[in-house]
Amino acid sequence: MPDDVLKELLHPNEKKIVLLVIDGLGGLPLEKGGKTELETAHTPNLDALATEAECGLHLPVGFGITPGSAPGHLALFGYQPMEYPVGRGVVAAMGIAFPMRAGDVAARLNFATCDQHGLITDRRAGRIPTETCGRLCDLLGAVSIPGVEVFVRPVKDYRAVVVFRGEGLSDHVADTDPQTTGVKALEPKPTSEKGVKTASTAKEFIRQALVLLMAQAPANAILMRGFAELPHIPPMTERFGLRPAALAVYPDYKGVSRLVGMEVIDGLRDLNDQAEALKHHWDRYDFFFVHHKYADSRGEDGDFQAKVAEIERVDAFVPQIMARHPDVLIVTGDHSTPATMKSHSYHPIPFLLHGRNTRPDEVSEFGERPCAKGLWGIIPGVMLVQLALAYADKLSKYGA
Amino acid sequence: MPDDVLKELLHPNEKKIVLLVIDGLGGLPLEKGGKTELETAHTPNLDALATEAECGLHLPVGFGITPGSAPGHLALFGYQPMEYPVGRGVVAAMGIAFPMRAGDVAARLNFATCDQHGLITDRRAGRIPTETCGRLCDLLGAVSIPGVEVFVRPVKDYRAVVVFRGEGLSDHVADTDPQTTGVKALEPKPTSEKGVKTASTAKEFIRQALVLLMAQAPANAILMRGFAELPHIPPMTERFGLRPAALAVYPDYKGVSRLVGMEVIDGLRDLNDQAEALKHHWDRYDFFFVHHKYADSRGEDGDFQAKVAEIERVDAFVPQIMARHPDVLIVTGDHSTPATMKSHSYHPIPFLLHGRNTRPDEVSEFGERPCAKGLWGIIPGVMLVQLALAYADKLSKYGA
Repeated sequence: MPDDVLKELLHPNEKKIVLLVIDGLGGLPLEKGGKTELETAHTPNLDALATEAECGLHLPVGFGITPGSAPGHLALFGYQPMEYPVGRGVVAAMGIAFPMRAGDVAARLNFATCDQHGLITDRRAGRIPTETCGRLCDLLGAVSIPGVEVFVRPVKDYRAVVVFRGEGLSDHVADTDPQTTGVKALEPKPTSEKGVKTASTAKEFIRQALVLLMAQAPANAILMRGFAELPHIPPMTERFGLRPAALAVYPDYKGVSRLVGMEVIDGLRDLNDQAEALKHHWDRYDFFFVHHKYADSRGEDGDFQAKVAEIERVDAFVPQIMARHPDVLIVTGDHSTPATMKSHSYHPIPFLLHGRNTRPDEVSEFGERPCAKGLWGIIPGVMLVQLALAYADKLSKYGA
Repeated sequence: MPDDVLKELLHPNEKKIVLLVIDGLGGLPLEKGGKTELETAHTPNLDALATEAECGLHLPVGFGITPGSAPGHLALFGYQPMEYPVGRGVVAAMGIAFPMRAGDVAARLNFATCDQHGLITDRRAGRIPTETCGRLCDLLGAVSIPGVEVFVRPVKDYRAVVVFRGEGLSDHVADTDPQTTGVKALEPKPTSEKGVKTASTAKEFIRQALVLLMAQAPANAILMRGFAELPHIPPMTERFGLRPAALAVYPDYKGVSRLVGMEVIDGLRDLNDQAEALKHHWDRYDFFFVHHKYADSRGEDGDFQAKVAEIERVDAFVPQIMARHPDVLIVTGDHSTPATMKSHSYHPIPFLLHGRNTRPDEVSEFGERPCAKGLWGIIPGVMLVQLALAYADKLSKYGA
C-alpha cells in the first residue's frame, strides 16, 4: 500500500503492540523426517498463543533470498528492505548510537592478528575484550587525514566502527577482509568512480593504523568491511503513527531500531531486564520491539540442541509479556538459521499474530509445519506491521 | 497483469460467468474456539459447490486494510481499488443512475432534524420515507446559485444526493455531518485551495436549503458528506471483453456497477426477483453480478444469528443460479463484517470458484477455515475476474 494512502488511514490510539523477535527462529530437521529446532522445543506458552492466534510464514526479502540481520529487521518494522538498503557500517554505527550525519561513510572495523610478513593469522585478534578494543580505538584517534575527519569507536570484543566525514565520500568501496587466514588483508578498492576518494582515505587510514598498532599484538592489524552511507528512512512515527521502543541487548539491533526512529531502551542485558523494561515503559510507547539474539547464535554455531534451549528460554519469558496484556502480539524471527546450515538461510519464518479479533485457524503448535497450514500461508514479512496496526484498531476503513 | 497485455489475450465467447456476492460474508466466531457465521450456517448447496470448486480467501485492498463497499466491489470487478478511488457521492449518484458528467461534484445529502438553536437532534430526520424525501428534493430544486447548476435527487429514506455542475469545482471539501447529535452541522470547508469554490457553493446551497426546509420538521436540516468527482474507469467490456449485467437491490451497488460500465437491471426487490432476472436476461449477457446485501447489514447490527440466517437464505437461492448452468460461478464477499465487530473488517474473505475445468482441492465445506486450506490460499481479490475469464475459456495463451 502506498505510504500516502496508508497515512490517510492511520488512526493512532493507546493500544499496545509487541513484536517479539527470536533471531534466526526458522530451522531445519537434523535428519530427514525429523523435527526442526522450533518443533523440537517444548514451548507450552507459544503453543497456547498459536492456538488462539492467526499463524503463517513470512519472507522478509523475497523467494530464495537469505536476509542479513538489517534487512530481516527492516522488513519486520514495515520497510521493504530493497527500498532501504542499509550497509553493515551504518548498522554498527547506529548500534553504538554514533551520531552519523548525511554524507558520512561508516565501516565495520575488526581488529586482527598478522605475522611478520603481514599475513593474517587470526581475523578476530584472539577475541580481545571490549576494554582493550576501546583502548585501541583511542590509540587510532591519532590518525590524521587532511580534509577528512576520522572517528573510531569500539563496538564489542574485537569489533569497532570507523566513520569518515568529509566532502565527496561514498560507500563505493570493497571490503578489505579476505574472509580467510594465511593471506594479506586486501587493499580498499573503489567499486566505482565515486569511491576513489573514500578508498584512498581508507588506504591512508590503514597505513597509519598499522604503524600505531605495531606493538599491540594480537591486535596488530585491522580489517574493514561494509562501507556504508546513512540512508534516509522515514521514522515509524511518521509512517505508521506509532511510538516505538526497542528492547534489545545487542548493539546491531539497537542500530537498526534507531534507523527507523525507535527509542532504544539502553542497558538491557538479558530477557529479565527486557521484561522489567517492558513493565517500566509500558505506558510510554505503543509499539515494543523485543529482541532475543541467541537462537541465531546457536544456529550459527551448528548447535541444534543449544538453539532448542534458547527457544525454550524465550517460551518461558512469554508469560512476562502476556502479563502486560498487549492488544497485539507478534512472535516471529528475522530470518531462519538452521543449525544444520550454520548460517542464515532463505527458508520462510513462522509467525503468530495474537489479538482480540484474530480469526483462529487450526494451528495449535508453534512450528514451521503447523504454521504452513495457518490462515496466512506465506506472506511478505513487510506486511506484518500493517496487520498489527489493523488488529490494534489503528487503521480506519479505506474508501466509501 | 497490465491492461494492454491482458487485452491482447481476450477471447470473448458465449460462456457465462456468475459472480454471487454475499455482502460482508467473512466473519469471526462469537467466542474463542467457536465457529464463524458462515461456518455456523447450514449451507448444503454452497458446501456441495465447494466440494467441486477451487477455494481460497481473498484480500480486496491489502493486508490489514478494511475495504469500504466501493473498493471492495471494484476489486471483485477486477479493478485495483487504489488505482480508482471512488467517493461516496459518486457511488450515491451512480446508484440512482444520475447521469454525471466529467467535472461534476456529487455529495451524499442526509435530511436531518435540528432544534430552534440549530443543534442536530436526529441525523436521519426520523427516517422519513422515500416519498417524503422525493418531495423535499423537489422543494430544494428552487435553490439557485449563479454559475452552478444544482441537482438534488432522492435515494432512499432520508438519503439523497446533490450534484453541482459548473466550472472550477472539485471534491476537496470536508463533510458537514458532525457524526453526532447535540451539536451544529459543520461548515463545508475546503481541504485544499482547489476546494474553495465548491465549499462556498455548498455553503450557499445549505443556506438556501435551510430556508426552504424551515417548515418541514422533522426534515428541517441537511448534512452533506462524501464530496466526490467522477473518476475515469475503463468499462468491463473494454477491459475484459465482457457484457456485464448487475442484479442488485440496493442503490449503492447499482452505482458501483454502473461505474465499471455494467448494465443495471432495475426494479429488483429480493432474491426471487434476482433469480427471475437471471433467467430472463441469461442470453443477453455473459457476466452477471448478483448482490445480496443483508449479511452485511445483520453483521453491522451485531446480530450473529440473523447474519447466519441471511447466509442460509442465499444458500437456498443457489439452486436457482445452478439451474442456469453457468460456466463459471464465483461465490464470495466484498469484505468481512463480523457480527462481533459490528463493522466492516480487514479479515480475508472466503471464495469458491466453480466451473468445468477447476481442479478440486480438499475443501468440502464453504467456510473461512476450510477455504484457508483451499487451493488458492490468500490471493488479491482483484485477481478473481482474471481467474473467471480463464475458467470460462475467455483468455488465450500468453506467448508462443
